[in-house]
Order: sequence, then C-alpha cells, then structure tokens
Amino acid sequence: MSQDKHIAIVGATGAVGEEMLKCLEERAFPMSKLTLLASARSAGQKRTFRGEEIEIQELTHDSFGGIDVALFAAGGGISEEYAPSAVKAGAIVVDNSSAFRMDPDVPLVVPEINPEDARQAKKGIIANPNCTTIISLMALFPLHKKFGLKSIIASSYQAVSGSGTAGIAELEQQVNALAQGEPIEQNVYPKQIAFNVIPHVDVFQDGGYTKEELKMLNESRKILALPELKVSCTCVRVPVYRSHSVSLTAEFDQAVDVAQAREAFAGYPGIQLVDDPDQELYPVPLDTTNKNDCLVGRIRKDTVMDNALALWVVGDQVLKGAALNAVQIAEVL
Amino acid sequence: MSQDKHIAIVGATGAVGEEMLKCLEERAFPMSKLTLLASARSAGQKRTFRGEEIEIQELTHDSFGGIDVALFAAGGGISEEYAPSAVKAGAIVVDNSSAFRMDPDVPLVVPEINPEDARQAKKGIIANPNCTTIISLMALFPLHKKFGLKSIIASSYQAVSGSGTAGIAELEQQVNALAQGEPIEQNVYPKQIAFNVIPHVDVFQDGGYTKEELKMLNESRKILALPELKVSCTCVRVPVYRSHSVSLTAEFDQAVDVAQAREAFAGYPGIQLVDDPDQELYPVPLDTTNKNDCLVGRIRKDTVMDNALALWVVGDQVLKGAALNAVQIAEVL
Repeated sequence: MSQDKHIAIVGATGAVGEEMLKCLEERAFPMSKLTLLASARSAGQKRTFRGEEIEIQELTHDSFGGIDVALFAAGGGISEEYAPSAVKAGAIVVDNSSAFRMDPDVPLVVPEINPEDARQAKKGIIANPNCTTIISLMALFPLHKKFGLKSIIASSYQAVSGSGTAGIAELEQQVNALAQGEPIEQNVYPKQIAFNVIPHVDVFQDGGYTKEELKMLNESRKILALPELKVSCTCVRVPVYRSHSVSLTAEFDQAVDVAQAREAFAGYPGIQLVDDPDQELYPVPLDTTNKNDCLVGRIRKDTVMDNALALWVVGDQVLKGAALNAVQIAEVL
Repeated sequence: MSQDKHIAIVGATGAVGEEMLKCLEERAFPMSKLTLLASARSAGQKRTFRGEEIEIQELTHDSFGGIDVALFAAGGGISEEYAPSAVKAGAIVVDNSSAFRMDPDVPLVVPEINPEDARQAKKGIIANPNCTTIISLMALFPLHKKFGLKSIIASSYQAVSGSGTAGIAELEQQVNALAQGEPIEQNVYPKQIAFNVIPHVDVFQDGGYTKEELKMLNESRKILALPELKVSCTCVRVPVYRSHSVSLTAEFDQAVDVAQAREAFAGYPGIQLVDDPDQELYPVPLDTTNKNDCLVGRIRKDTVMDNALALWVVGDQVLKGAALNAVQIAEVL
C-alpha cells in the first residue's frame, strides 16, 4: 500500500463489527480515516478508535464516497444490497457474509493460505470464508502442503457468538432464567442451547446437510483450489460463548505419522501446536477466546483410513473466523 | 426366571446406583428382596423402593449372602475388590465399570444386540459396556444387521453425568460462581467445563487416544463380534448435564441410502428415529434426559466414503448408557 487508506466498517455495532474495530486498532493498520456504518437504529452512537470518538453513521447507498476498503459484517442481505454501491463508489469490499463466497469472480481468502487470490477481485469484492471452514483449514493447510489433502470428515462444536450478539444474549438469558426457575426465552436457536447441544447450524438443504455443513465442502475446495476434495461435515452448536472447536479426520495422498504432522506446523503463522498428551496439553475454546491464533492438538494416527490423521482445532471464530481474517485480507490488498 | 430374585445394588448412592433403583422400580423387575450397599459414609441412609424404606448397608466382603444378582455401580476399584466375593457367595455380578469388560470370559452385553452372550458368564460376571459405546451401537446395530458394518468414525458430546454426581456438581458450581463473579472450583475436570468443551475423557494412552476412545474400538468389536471392525473416536466432554450425543460416520459392506437406513430402524426396541429435516426434527440431549430410548437422526449419505452414512445419536447415558442397560442384563438372566 502506497498510501494510507480510508476504511469503513458496515455493521459496526454487531459482534463481528466491534471486533473489526479492535483488530484495526491493535494491528496498527495504516489508515487515514475510519467510517463506521450501521442501521438507523444504531446511528449516532459513538465508538472510540485510537483515542478519538467516531460517530456511527446510518448505512445508505451514498455512504461510500472516498472509501478505499469497506469491511462488511452485517449479514448477507445487507451485503447483497449495499456491496454494489460500495464498489460503484470505488471501494474494495471485504465481505464477511456468505452472499458472494461461491461467485467464481469473487476470491475467497484466508490470508495464510491463498493471499494471492485477493488480488483477483474482478468484481471489487473479496469474500471472507465461513468461520468453521477458516479454523479447520488453518489446521489442515500445513498438513496439506506436506502430505496432500484428500478428504475431511468433521464434527464441529460451535460457540453461540457465531450467531452474533443475539446468540450470546440467548445463552446468557437461558442460563440465568434456569438458575432462577424462570421461563427461558428462545428466539435465536430452535431448541434450548443452555446445557444442550444442537446439531443444526444454518438451514437444511436437500440431502439432509445444512448450509453450514455444505460450506465446509464448497468453501474448502475453493480456498485450497482442490475441486475434487471430499468433505463430510456435521455442524453442532454448543453452549460455549466464544471459539469454535472442530474434531477432524483428514486423509492424505501420502503416508503421515504423528511426529511428521507435528513438525509440519513449524513456521506457519496463525496456528499454534498445543499437543502433549503426557502433559495433558490440548486446546479448548477458553484458551483461544480473544486470541488471534488457532490452536491444534490431539493429533493421532486415524485408525479407520490409511494415510489419515485425527486432530482437534480450536479458534476464536469472531476473530480468526471473521473479523481478524477480514482485516488481514484488507492488509494483503 | 422361575423364581423372584434377591437383587443388590453396589454403589447405591451414586448417580448410576440411584438410577438403577428407579429402573428396578419402574420396570416391575420380579424380585423378592433388594439390598442396597455403599461405602461406610453412606451406610444408614435410607431409600424408598416400592413404598418401603430400605436402609443402605456398608459394603463388605460378607455383604453378598443370599443375593442372586449384584449390580455393581461403584467404579472399577470396588468392582475388582468385591465382585469376586459376590461371585463366591453365589451371586451373578452385572458390572458397570470397565474392570472386566475385555476379559474373554466376561460377556459384554447390550441386551438389544447380544443378549445370548449374557448366558456365557463363565466367571459369574457380566460387564455393562461403556456409555458412549452403548449409545453409538444402539444406532449402528440395526444398520449393521442390514448392511454390514465396516468402520466407525465418531466424535462425542458427553454430558457431565458421565463423571457421576461430582461431574454434575462441578458444572453447577462453576456456572453459579461465574454468574456471581466468584472463583470456580475444579476437582473433576482438568479444565473449566462451564461454557467450554474438553477433548479429554479418561486417561491418555500410547498413540494419543484416551482410554474412553479406545473403549469405543475394543468394546464395539467385542459386542458386535466383529474383530476386524475399524473404529476411530474423539471423545469430548460438553457442558450438558445429562445425555451423550455422538456424531457418527459409519461405513458398510453394502450400498445404503438414507431411505433404506431409516427403514432399518423399524421394529428395533430401544431406538427411535427422530429424523425429518423439513420439520427441523433431530434429537438433542434434553429430549432424551430421563428417557429409556436412544434417539437417532440427521441421517445423511456420507460424502467422503463409499457405502457410508453420517448420523447423530443421543441417549441418556445414566440410563441406557449405564443403569438401564445393567437392569436389562439382569432381566435377560
């Protein structure tokens, strides 16, 4: 970047938008100006950024004049409606929603994996992948580079922050209500999430998989440029406030053992190995909350498939799974 | 059974022991007498059974005179020490611990699957399988009968009741302490379990798998009499009070589709199909709590392996995963 940029956050008061603000601040992102956009309801609120107060403005089609990079974190509907206006005004859009991810002219980028794709944004839009996919691929990419990824079987343990502030509030309300013998409220999840797990994230599609589960298949293929990659996934919401965990079985072209797998992570940014059964060391969601790095552990030789490993990865899905990854994409530009 | 029997529960004040008492009562088990045994600490307490008060007696090596069937639910150490005394006194032992499960002379029985094995108790001991294994096999057995089970890849979501009353108390204490800003207590689990998930159930073994994970392999092979069965498992504790869930990928000898798989469950006792994505119907742990049946759903064609299905099973691990299964074994005798 030759010049400092004017950045906008669309959806600045949401769970991901708030974290984008923090990421921009912490990473000393080179910028001349920050514009915060949100719905009319939030307009007028203030946020502090690098010691200065910024007033949140109402998002309109005319919000994007002079903006270089617009980080969208307000859901697919808002992205579909306003991203074209941002592009028309000359901004590059980094979109956290799923609206454009599978568009062949929209790169889908994890900066540690395929940063070069970010420079192919024919439509002026770059998509931020699904959170569970990012976290899973952070663990699988170093192994893929060395052993050649062939298939993934995944079961997720997804935090309520994946549903934004409303998901967090619902778990809190239910836990408090149950403690006081009061009725629970249920608006975000189809079942009680407190002290329960729900094998249903996003809507069901033909074949019985959910959209979230199919994202793991389709987005992994696109990010890794492996159109033949096989992926089977079961996505489950758990009563954790933040950080997604994924139990992975990964099959490779080449033989791989646990020692080789552990070595493969050396030197890769954004992923830390926490894997020492003798010391009872393995990652859990509370260890990654508010941290940028994903943590990988429980690496074992899989006992069902040849050339396969079982492993466990955890990452803060609001950060690496969303806000941080988007800011990193903006940094690549 | 020609005669009504004298039954004993060893560990009558534990989470599983208490449920055994309820199961015996609810199932109108034909018995002449019930003896409740526990540690000296609990001796003298009373429990009501079929309208009568029974005083809990201290467990000693002389506790088993006249007892026909002794249900052991007090942990492996107690089983190892006292089961031989029970057998010597003429009782048949149904043991809920892992102490004797892999002994070739001890049958390992799920009554819906291999009831005939219960009659081969050469040592007078019958073992009750691991809870996660029972629940998983309840879902897989009807499919195995029809399509021939070849391999299982499993990720579990295990409730704290799997650690007995101490596990339940630890989750409760942590949730309350966190709500009040007080320090959490941590005695049962190596990490905070409230609002967290822990990929560590039972102790680590060579190769990085835990004992719990290897139970799924070894016990499944023994129960199904499939010595070549391949099983790979990741066991995870979740902040759910009761009922284990398991995300399964099951590979079969024969081709299988979702409709055939659903049909396979018709007529099998102890397992209910709850599987209608269009109606958002699938099992969750709260649905099975205090219920005898396991529930299976989310049946999908697996997209990684040929002839394979992805599915989701949930069962009350204190009941079908422990107490109920033990009482059912006693019924088979």
